[in-house]
Amino acid sequence: MFYTDNKLQYPVRVDSPDPLFARALQQAIGGVEGEIRVAMQYFFQACGARGNPKFRDLLMNTAAEELGHIEMLATAVAMNLEGAPLSMKEEVAASDRAVGAIMGGINLKNLLSSGLSAMPVDSDGVPFDMSHIYASGNIAADMTANVAAESTGRTLAVRLYNMTDDAGMKDMLSYLIARDTMHQNQWLAALEELGGMTGAFPIPNSFPQDQEKTDFSYAYLGFQADGSEPVAGRWSDGQSIDGKGEFTAQPMQPLGEKPDLGAARPQSGAQSEQIGEQ
Amino acid sequence: MFYTDNKLQYPVRVDSPDPLFARALQQAIGGVEGEIRVAMQYFFQACGARGNPKFRDLLMNTAAEELGHIEMLATAVAMNLEGAPLSMKEEVAASDRAVGAIMGGINLKNLLSSGLSAMPVDSDGVPFDMSHIYASGNIAADMTANVAAESTGRTLAVRLYNMTDDAGMKDMLSYLIARDTMHQNQWLAALEELGGMTGAFPIPNSFPQDQEKTDFSYAYLGFQADGSEPVAGRWSDGQSIDGKGEFTAQPMQPLGEKPDLGAARPQSGAQSEQIGEQ
Amino acid sequence: MFYTDNKLQYPVRVDSPDPLFARALQQAIGGVEGEIRVAMQYFFQACGARGNPKFRDLLMNTAAEELGHIEMLATAVAMNLEGAPLSMKEEVAASDRAVGAIMGGINLKNLLSSGLSAMPVDSDGVPFDMSHIYASGNIAADMTANVAAESTGRTLAVRLYNMTDDAGMKDMLSYLIARDTMHQNQWLAALEELGGMTGAFPIPNSFPQDQEKTDFSYAYLGFQADGSEPVAGRWSDGQSIDGKGEFTAQPMQPLGEKPDLGAARPQSGAQSEQIGEQ
Amino acid sequence: MFYTDNKLQYPVRVDSPDPLFARALQQAIGGVEGEIRVAMQYFFQACGARGNPKFRDLLMNTAAEELGHIEMLATAVAMNLEGAPLSMKEEVAASDRAVGAIMGGINLKNLLSSGLSAMPVDSDGVPFDMSHIYASGNIAADMTANVAAESTGRTLAVRLYNMTDDAGMKDMLSYLIARDTMHQNQWLAALEELGGMTGAFPIPNSFPQDQEKTDFSYAYLGFQADGSEPVAGRWSDGQSIDGKGEFTAQPMQPLGEKPDLGAARPQSGAQSEQIGEQ
Amino acid sequence: MFYTDNKLQYPVRVDSPDPLFARALQQAIGGVEGEIRVAMQYFFQACGARGNPKFRDLLMNTAAEELGHIEMLATAVAMNLEGAPLSMKEEVAASDRAVGAIMGGINLKNLLSSGLSAMPVDSDGVPFDMSHIYASGNIAADMTANVAAESTGRTLAVRLYNMTDDAGMKDMLSYLIARDTMHQNQWLAALEELGGMTGAFPIPNSFPQDQEKTDFSYAYLGFQADGSEPVAGRWSDGQSIDGKGEFTAQPMQPLGEKPDLGAARPQSGAQSEQIGEQ
Amino acid sequence: MFYTDNKLQYPVRVDSPDPLFARALQQAIGGVEGEIRVAMQYFFQACGARGNPKFRDLLMNTAAEELGHIEMLATAVAMNLEGAPLSMKEEVAASDRAVGAIMGGINLKNLLSSGLSAMPVDSDGVPFDMSHIYASGNIAADMTANVAAESTGRTLAVRLYNMTDDAGMKDMLSYLIARDTMHQNQWLAALEELGGMTGAFPIPNSFPQDQEKTDFSYAYLGFQADGSEPVAGRWSDGQSIDGKGEFTAQPMQPLGEKPDLGAARPQSGAQSEQIGEQ
Repeated sequence: MFYTDNKLQYPVRVDSPDPLFARALQQAIGGVEGEIRVAMQYFFQACGARGNPKFRDLLMNTAAEELGHIEMLATAVAMNLEGAPLSMKEEVAASDRAVGAIMGGINLKNLLSSGLSAMPVDSDGVPFDMSHIYASGNIAADMTANVAAESTGRTLAVRLYNMTDDAGMKDMLSYLIARDTMHQNQWLAALEELGGMTGAFPIPNSFPQDQEKTDFSYAYLGFQADGSEPVAGRWSDGQSIDGKGEFTAQPMQPLGEKPDLGAARPQSGAQSEQIGEQ
Repeated sequence: MFYTDNKLQYPVRVDSPDPLFARALQQAIGGVEGEIRVAMQYFFQACGARGNPKFRDLLMNTAAEELGHIEMLATAVAMNLEGAPLSMKEEVAASDRAVGAIMGGINLKNLLSSGLSAMPVDSDGVPFDMSHIYASGNIAADMTANVAAESTGRTLAVRLYNMTDDAGMKDMLSYLIARDTMHQNQWLAALEELGGMTGAFPIPNSFPQDQEKTDFSYAYLGFQADGSEPVAGRWSDGQSIDGKGEFTAQPMQPLGEKPDLGAARPQSGAQSEQIGEQ
Repeated sequence: MFYTDNKLQYPVRVDSPDPLFARALQQAIGGVEGEIRVAMQYFFQACGARGNPKFRDLLMNTAAEELGHIEMLATAVAMNLEGAPLSMKEEVAASDRAVGAIMGGINLKNLLSSGLSAMPVDSDGVPFDMSHIYASGNIAADMTANVAAESTGRTLAVRLYNMTDDAGMKDMLSYLIARDTMHQNQWLAALEELGGMTGAFPIPNSFPQDQEKTDFSYAYLGFQADGSEPVAGRWSDGQSIDGKGEFTAQPMQPLGEKPDLGAARPQSGAQSEQIGEQ
Repeated sequence: MFYTDNKLQYPVRVDSPDPLFARALQQAIGGVEGEIRVAMQYFFQACGARGNPKFRDLLMNTAAEELGHIEMLATAVAMNLEGAPLSMKEEVAASDRAVGAIMGGINLKNLLSSGLSAMPVDSDGVPFDMSHIYASGNIAADMTANVAAESTGRTLAVRLYNMTDDAGMKDMLSYLIARDTMHQNQWLAALEELGGMTGAFPIPNSFPQDQEKTDFSYAYLGFQADGSEPVAGRWSDGQSIDGKGEFTAQPMQPLGEKPDLGAARPQSGAQSEQIGEQ
Repeated sequence: MFYTDNKLQYPVRVDSPDPLFARALQQAIGGVEGEIRVAMQYFFQACGARGNPKFRDLLMNTAAEELGHIEMLATAVAMNLEGAPLSMKEEVAASDRAVGAIMGGINLKNLLSSGLSAMPVDSDGVPFDMSHIYASGNIAADMTANVAAESTGRTLAVRLYNMTDDAGMKDMLSYLIARDTMHQNQWLAALEELGGMTGAFPIPNSFPQDQEKTDFSYAYLGFQADGSEPVAGRWSDGQSIDGKGEFTAQPMQPLGEKPDLGAARPQSGAQSEQIGEQ
Repeated sequence: MFYTDNKLQYPVRVDSPDPLFARALQQAIGGVEGEIRVAMQYFFQACGARGNPKFRDLLMNTAAEELGHIEMLATAVAMNLEGAPLSMKEEVAASDRAVGAIMGGINLKNLLSSGLSAMPVDSDGVPFDMSHIYASGNIAADMTANVAAESTGRTLAVRLYNMTDDAGMKDMLSYLIARDTMHQNQWLAALEELGGMTGAFPIPNSFPQDQEKTDFSYAYLGFQADGSEPVAGRWSDGQSIDGKGEFTAQPMQPLGEKPDLGAARPQSGAQSEQIGEQ
């Protein structure tokens, strides 16, 4: 169950409203690296968490935090849209750029659909698609997805920080960047509790590895057209990261034949030639 | 540039065609944890790789491998659909289940749209959406996304392995599971080359951490309604995983005020009451 | 800012787990009439609310409630999936239906992607698309969208209630149905505060109606091929509901001409014939 | 069955073609508040209408009207794209803005995909998704969805009207705004025929309310973190709008416990730790 | 402008309602080969048709026809859902199949979202996405897209015809199949008017072919890993179909180098290693 | 199975990087007429090809080619983004356009999500949706889809060629245009091998035409509101293109009645009025 106090988790201040930056901020709301994604991902992972209940609590606690981040960013978008032109000839305060250029650079839906407010869309106006909520039922796989989400998320926040000159926006983003630093560490810490590199991997660790085709479990295979060795690195030599094998490297040869599905069946809507009637 | 030899990377054999298992296999083709995702993700990461060129080569080499996995699975889907009924009254060989039950359990598009062949859709017939291709321009963030993709991918392959009794399908899946083992290790090894936990994190490591709001960089914040401490764990105490801070824990208080966007602007399509005219 | 207490808003009890009903419940989570939709819709409407701040508070308060409904339903889905078969030959407790029939009737992603947990998808496995979050910047238009959401939402909940025999599920749904009753009334009450039928409509009420083509503002136009009057009703006679006009009815004639876009431009990628060169 | 006469329902005139306004108009075609949405929504509601056949006729009649509105808007988009630049260096007639700014502000697909014609996409180039067609099988719920569609639709049309200076476009939009006025009233009138506030609500009115958890049917619940009363209004006091209860208000307490899904099942692809094996 | 007469273009009769066939029919409504696609495709092509106005008339005339086909199919879906179970224990008339099997085989949204009516979704419940409306601004390209649409459309209709035993449904489908026969021919005839194989191709025919890299315009290139010739056929020898060249065949060699994007830029959110700082 | 040599199929050179043209090029990668579409379409058609195996080889060979085209275009996008501004105040080399105008014209995701690299999205930032992969199981229908794909694809490439002044980009595009010329011819040649106009059509040619409602198989029907003849052309007179009938033309009359679905069922969530209870 959830509660709110109607306040912002961290102050949101915009010194010079910039409709184009509002558009950029939309990526942090409805982009695949954005806050809706993490809020809902942790939420659904929590709801499906089986085993040690502390992971449910950890996940739901942070889901609550991320909901507050969406709220902050949505407020920031609305504030940056303050000065946006509503008509082709409207005066644009504090700007020598032409109205057309500004309007053209905005997610027009922020004007037309939401009336100068934030939307659950990315910086190009594409709505967030909930298929990006990874909640796999495997707690370690979930943690890798969370590390990835926070890594791309912090990369996005850094790009936004670098893009703007607005002191208020930089302040807000410096908070969000710090939180992403923590969350990267938080999920890596959870992975460590789950056994770390040698305990948790390969994920899922409940599958008996003797049932996999072990000749290929630690082989770095090459698919170079000239049959040469693929580029070498830590992945081609030495103990595997999960501690359960030794890396080897080799060019791959096809082990299967050319597939042949045979003739099409009558009544399957194929051409007569495919069925063998002509 | 890409080449093909028209052969399968690994043999695909189906002993007892099962249309329902064909549907399940579709998840490994067009699901968010499936092979289109990894093939295209490594492909686009390679195309955008800046810095040390070995990562481009590594990524494109494995993209080529994954393309072959799609081909294997697409073949397996078509072979499992061999015995599928095309009409309500058709005889169903090797099955005592009613036609209606079988037809109802199939992705009907596998019959109606593709004529007993594979499609780039998941096990519920939802087409793959390329927004799942994470290629961030940050090579370390990309590696975390790849570890996540292979972790959920291997989890899926294990579930498919557990679902089927077919010896041919189990053989094929044991190969794919082994490859996912390798790929988890491969991307973790790449991350190690990039500095590992203490060198690569927090991602992006090019951002000067003194510009982030450091009070919150390693603080595990609680959002419990009663103001209690959030659940403790490795994430609430000790050195951070990136080695750059100490974990602390504390309940969070709102630092911002209640947001107030003020009145709506005339001409913005709001109600008169919002604009202040009545 | 949001908080949680990790408890369920209302008890969730499943007496006889039913994987097919789990699939049906997914519609109430990730369907367009589901709880993600209302939670996120009220959330974004709150974030963009301008004018009297009480509407922001009202909306965000109810957004918090709806988040708890998603949590309840996600728990119910996981509990209904308890007995689901994981393999083709697994014993199915408390059921005489064939495994194939059950598996075929499940959203396979609930097994393959989420490991017997809920997902943000509808009953056919289609992910929720956030374009369904209507937050228009016009508070009255938002209320009409909310009434619609709760009307289709309660209809869905009633259908789920009618579908199941499980006493625990019926109990949970009777709570959710009651809340939908309240929420229909709540948003209608908000609309009444905003002036009701004659004050709020036509939405937006800030547009001067003398600028619209008033001959057509209250005319019920007929598009019957034989030029006959369209079917009569309250909409064709008497005072308009907004109290600002009188309904009339008439067959419509085209007022415009056949459109002619002329020749295509050279360099526009058209055929030569379209450009006028041949 | 449908017919056409190839003429426009209302004249479409563009005095000064403006490619940016073409983009804005796309929202009225393929946006969620646009004309495809209403045309197809009324169409599908008509096709599924059960009970009094007059509603089928009413809906299909207006679906025919809305098809003509798509045609008008598509014509307007093509006409506004007349002067659009096709190359970076092309002369831009009647404009002192740089080509880059104009091109950047256009839905590039209107050039690249459709050759200066309209598309079924919104103002950011996002294709219309037919999941927005609400046709619930409950005629009253459908009417609420229609009122909402026309309310957001008229809000959009007003914003477009305010955005442009073009006399031709203003004339066309003044017609569409008038039609939205009528359609808001039309669907409200239909709702009145269906019993109005006290007869039609709560929707569906066929569900016996004694089966819902009536303690919560008219209670305005508070989810404030400090346990305070939620913001008061018409919704917290007095007779309910449906006339079937009295509004009350109260803070909500969790009635359920913390959910516990227990251990994961073997073979479900979870980590060993979740299964209880270690 | 459009009109309706509320009648069906062709009789729709269902002798034995079959909810599973209702699901299959949904593919012909909202599938990518379905009637919404062709109706809207011809509609938008008409709206954007430049050059000889007869093509606009041809396209809009047939768009009107296809709207009537959607109506027929939507009626057929609703009629096939007549006997569908609404609850787990409901008696299923005229069927010895278990309720669970039937329910599991239905698009549950046809029950839960639309109350036993048709929806604009495909046979797996996936909503139609209007990006499938190909209206390119090139009238010949449009005709190829229309031939393709009618070819996959007739294939689908034939599969549906083969699937059902219902005499009423077979009758309706035999009409739709005939119409698809005509429409394939109709668009091929339009292509013939546009110059046929040697006049219309290569599309667009307005591009001066001497500006293309003519060495590759009629060369069938091989991408076989072993450098062998690709499989021979009509495409590798003889005059090209457009009559403007001679087919040749040859293995392809890379003409470009390995791409190198160099170092990442500072401030671009890359890792330090990519930027060259370490 | 697939291989790569890490080289580009054809040289990619950008003389003057242009971020706006990068956006335009995205259409050729992730647009519905783009290279992902053809690569994956030929790939899946190959995987499902039944009958003469030469078509599988032909399709997979060309799929390999198209993968290399994606690689070329992705490289071109990254190179055109070289000079893109990363911040509002950054100096923009070789341009007198304002940063805001440039930034506004870019797919912001190319900066924010991918760090100046290509993405699998179209020119408006919309991700490619794999439902556009037409692989019907009917080899002739597939060929029509391929002709359509290459026709819209070449139209797009020509528009891009016309849009840019960059000699490097024009060179690359002149190669891609040539390849599209070949591929149009290639698939038309395959269609000729399959019997051409009179042998392959109507598709599928395996359906006995005496089972279709032959009165309507070659009739060009009119849906003009005034009952007039539809516009004449090659499609209304003479032998049909498939050689199996004679074109006729006639206005259409409704052959069916007004549909009546009757009352709604109790328990179906309809209003009482629909059920007949009041």
